[in-house]
Amino acid sequence: MVRRIERKPVEKLDRLVDSVLGPHVPPIASVKPGEVVEVETWDALTRVTNPVTGPIEIEGAERGDTLVVEIMDIEMPDKGVTAIVSGFGALEGWLNLFEPRRKECEIRDGMIHYVTEDGRTLEIEADPFIGTIGVSPYFEAITTLSPGTHGGNMDCPDIRPGNTLMLPVFRPGALFALGDVHAVQGDGEVCGVAVEIPAVVTLRLGLEKDRTIGWPRVESDDEIMTVGSARPLEDAARQAFREMVDWMASDYGWEREDAYMFLSLAARARIAQIVDPLYTVVVKLDRRYLED
Amino acid sequence: MVRRIERKPVEKLDRLVDSVLGPHVPPIASVKPGEVVEVETWDALTRVTNPVTGPIEIEGAERGDTLVVEIMDIEMPDKGVTAIVSGFGALEGWLNLFEPRRKECEIRDGMIHYVTEDGRTLEIEADPFIGTIGVSPYFEAITTLSPGTHGGNMDCPDIRPGNTLMLPVFRPGALFALGDVHAVQGDGEVCGVAVEIPAVVTLRLGLEKDRTIGWPRVESDDEIMTVGSARPLEDAARQAFREMVDWMASDYGWEREDAYMFLSLAARARIAQIVDPLYTVVVKLDRRYLED
Amino acid sequence: MVRRIERKPVEKLDRLVDSVLGPHVPPIASVKPGEVVEVETWDALTRVTNPVTGPIEIEGAERGDTLVVEIMDIEMPDKGVTAIVSGFGALEGWLNLFEPRRKECEIRDGMIHYVTEDGRTLEIEADPFIGTIGVSPYFEAITTLSPGTHGGNMDCPDIRPGNTLMLPVFRPGALFALGDVHAVQGDGEVCGVAVEIPAVVTLRLGLEKDRTIGWPRVESDDEIMTVGSARPLEDAARQAFREMVDWMASDYGWEREDAYMFLSLAARARIAQIVDPLYTVVVKLDRRYLED
Amino acid sequence: MVRRIERKPVEKLDRLVDSVLGPHVPPIASVKPGEVVEVETWDALTRVTNPVTGPIEIEGAERGDTLVVEIMDIEMPDKGVTAIVSGFGALEGWLNLFEPRRKECEIRDGMIHYVTEDGRTLEIEADPFIGTIGVSPYFEAITTLSPGTHGGNMDCPDIRPGNTLMLPVFRPGALFALGDVHAVQGDGEVCGVAVEIPAVVTLRLGLEKDRTIGWPRVESDDEIMTVGSARPLEDAARQAFREMVDWMASDYGWEREDAYMFLSLAARARIAQIVDPLYTVVVKLDRRYLED
Repeated sequence: MVRRIERKPVEKLDRLVDSVLGPHVPPIASVKPGEVVEVETWDALTRVTNPVTGPIEIEGAERGDTLVVEIMDIEMPDKGVTAIVSGFGALEGWLNLFEPRRKECEIRDGMIHYVTEDGRTLEIEADPFIGTIGVSPYFEAITTLSPGTHGGNMDCPDIRPGNTLMLPVFRPGALFALGDVHAVQGDGEVCGVAVEIPAVVTLRLGLEKDRTIGWPRVESDDEIMTVGSARPLEDAARQAFREMVDWMASDYGWEREDAYMFLSLAARARIAQIVDPLYTVVVKLDRRYLED
Repeated sequence: MVRRIERKPVEKLDRLVDSVLGPHVPPIASVKPGEVVEVETWDALTRVTNPVTGPIEIEGAERGDTLVVEIMDIEMPDKGVTAIVSGFGALEGWLNLFEPRRKECEIRDGMIHYVTEDGRTLEIEADPFIGTIGVSPYFEAITTLSPGTHGGNMDCPDIRPGNTLMLPVFRPGALFALGDVHAVQGDGEVCGVAVEIPAVVTLRLGLEKDRTIGWPRVESDDEIMTVGSARPLEDAARQAFREMVDWMASDYGWEREDAYMFLSLAARARIAQIVDPLYTVVVKLDRRYLED
Repeated sequence: MVRRIERKPVEKLDRLVDSVLGPHVPPIASVKPGEVVEVETWDALTRVTNPVTGPIEIEGAERGDTLVVEIMDIEMPDKGVTAIVSGFGALEGWLNLFEPRRKECEIRDGMIHYVTEDGRTLEIEADPFIGTIGVSPYFEAITTLSPGTHGGNMDCPDIRPGNTLMLPVFRPGALFALGDVHAVQGDGEVCGVAVEIPAVVTLRLGLEKDRTIGWPRVESDDEIMTVGSARPLEDAARQAFREMVDWMASDYGWEREDAYMFLSLAARARIAQIVDPLYTVVVKLDRRYLED
Repeated sequence: MVRRIERKPVEKLDRLVDSVLGPHVPPIASVKPGEVVEVETWDALTRVTNPVTGPIEIEGAERGDTLVVEIMDIEMPDKGVTAIVSGFGALEGWLNLFEPRRKECEIRDGMIHYVTEDGRTLEIEADPFIGTIGVSPYFEAITTLSPGTHGGNMDCPDIRPGNTLMLPVFRPGALFALGDVHAVQGDGEVCGVAVEIPAVVTLRLGLEKDRTIGWPRVESDDEIMTVGSARPLEDAARQAFREMVDWMASDYGWEREDAYMFLSLAARARIAQIVDPLYTVVVKLDRRYLED
């Protein structure tokens, strides 16, 4: 039976521990490498700033290792919420006409039901993923609103069931936490909010000793991906592309010039979000170019 | 029989007319709205800065109209060229180790053959598109290296056969030109160069009178797309998202808040390039959300 | 007697020639290197987009030379205009409350008289300078709204009487033009408009053969200065700092590392403007560090 | 007699407490509002990342108050250090030729003695200021390398003896700390390092109850100043300009449009630094425009 890590009651949420990823927060659970856990999460609009569940300590994890998070399942509720929040969103100040708004969307049979102001229902296929997932930075306590080398609020739809996320370990035990699951999200998350849901996430938490990566990486059956975060957005792309060159060179034997040129012909680059304190880009390469 | 517009002999290429889009360059041909033409183009590495073929005058086009370019076919040669160019590329200065490099790639049976330094051959499916395509700006003559509201060097792989590009008209006759065809390109065009080819492009040049758009738009069978260009990259994305909100509102009856929120759930945003004087982002929305 | 170059009558101003710096515009006058001229200019709010007077051909100027513009005098009218223009200015979209506004300011006894909404008069010392001044780019025709390596709309208050501006020459004859004089301007030109005036500018137009510079440079009695323009603003600063390192190395014998470190201790960096298509920074070094 | 707050012995410095500003770090001292203290600081190159001395608790300070730091004196040692650090600095990657370098500079009779590689001595007037000074953020622990609304590593030469710094209070007791004193610094701190010194700083720590500010502010005898930090650099400028408009409106009775327009004529904007995780701009307005 899978062990379950419960979310904190809403009234006990505390920004100082639930809205940061950092070394000061005491772990709420400890797991052995390879263990599978079910983690309950709150949605991002719950009382305090984007609360996460954790930290979870991974036994034996040390600075310079890589945490390997296999995302096995996301259990969704039957509705989610989206919104326009005053002063937030990528077009804030560019289109001054947007009114704040809040909208519930039913989730049924794998579809999100979005009802427009004039009463039409549009169905979007649900594609749930973990918006905020990361480890403790080395010595900072970073708001769960921000992404970074430690993961965090990447809002990257590729961090979904069936894929594996790799995160660099900075602190003993890694101090892993997650939250902010989205039932679906468009690239860019342009109004600042997706379909926000509480959820139960099933994960296998593995560890690679003595393998050091610079930025979060994702593997799917078909692609390898790197996730960069920065401002301006082109620097997020550069971080992700550079990490991809490093990965191709270290794990797949590519000469660096070849890797750079080949990415210029075959990479995919998706904007994950342009609304958080740092912006996020995912760079992808098809595995077919990596096999012999 | 389709009329053919020839490219200029290489030795006659002149930066003042072939490397800019602008109102001073006299048209080399004039077409009626709805006419189909075959246009020969040089590759971007030909003698002068990214030469284009044109301008082609569209009869009756005036400021405030929209030029509608249906891309019917791209005829490729049997090889293309890619390169690392010193001082150019998105990781220039970020990875100082890249040596300049030039590589020919065979194009055969719809596949690009990329041979690595250590002699492996990787095959990438050819996906030819027009890198530089645009009209004259209102009063500037802009280098063909740069994209903008007038189109130009967008390096956007969605400007491909089967799709239709819309461009705002600024000058009488529109003064349309194109060049810089790529046999394939990765998102971001990270090293600054794709598989560069001369080509013959078949187009139908249509005109919508009295329809004014802000930025280039693309239609495929499945999606509508807007193309924004700016620095930093997030501003390119904002331009494209704003244009998409405008399009949804004006042509498909969306309330603006609904459009903004819905894009936050269902848009796709691809980085076209981060190597030209302005950077380019394409925002896409599936047509299924637009039909009744 | 000094030769006077008249501004065009307002009704003859034409965006295609008066609102660009470019190689297609025929010169309105030709001067010998070393000649002094008086140039009449319109203010930036005159009918067409930021009109300039010119181009003025400098005999013998060729690509790779440097144009040396000694600014001798600016004759001001007795009033100027400032404004808040809808959709323009550095806080546009950041402070949505700003109403468009237009205000005349008297210029008397070397002081600008600014009268507030509630009727107080504030006096600012006039410090007139040339907002837009440049040469033709090599093959583009760039709007007079934009600055660049060719000069243009730098809105840099150091381009003032007593100082000397150096510009790279790209086209035969340099094709020099100027306009957009400001009676005074704050750093950043934050609302997008300064005290805009028509003026008569007295200049000596010199030429240094075979001296090639990368960006505009300014010399005063006390300082040497470089002017960089780009987006984002940090890249404008980097351009200006890099040009300063080059200058210190080539003309004053500094080792490059010493120049870089020393600028980190002794440079001054002023934001000229953050409202034009590219932003502008001026980097300054006191001459006392350059003399033996 | 003034109370002295000692710096920690070097061997006890710990990144988790000495290299962050945050709510988790226990205060090392507590002062009453209005008290004068002497604080010993380490230089930024000391063992751990940019160590600060603190936190110092100010009795009675609460969220929404403003901490008022009167900078009375900086006692300098007789030498400082500057350096080029590999992978750091504003021209890193723009001028690949810079070699790492470390240089001691004597400080004597108020002058910094910089000896060039070829043995010339250049004297720069010492102008000591506090590079890193701030309070605890509300719930994050932010590296002392970064500036922000809480102050931090602003590297702003106007935070000097004779001037008064105001900081927003986020946590009970404010949790104030400082370090990273510079004997002198150029605008931009372009190579990433100034003349770094340990120092003894004399301060009066005052408190304004129920006055809430958005960003750090500085007052001198002649000017009022606002300090904004962000990436890209234009956003730092926008933050500082917006804070200045707010200040002029709330404390000096300016109508907002008047404030915005007047700043466009009379503001000064200096680049403080372009090398830290966020960049910093200082906007200044002469007091003569504020008095009746």
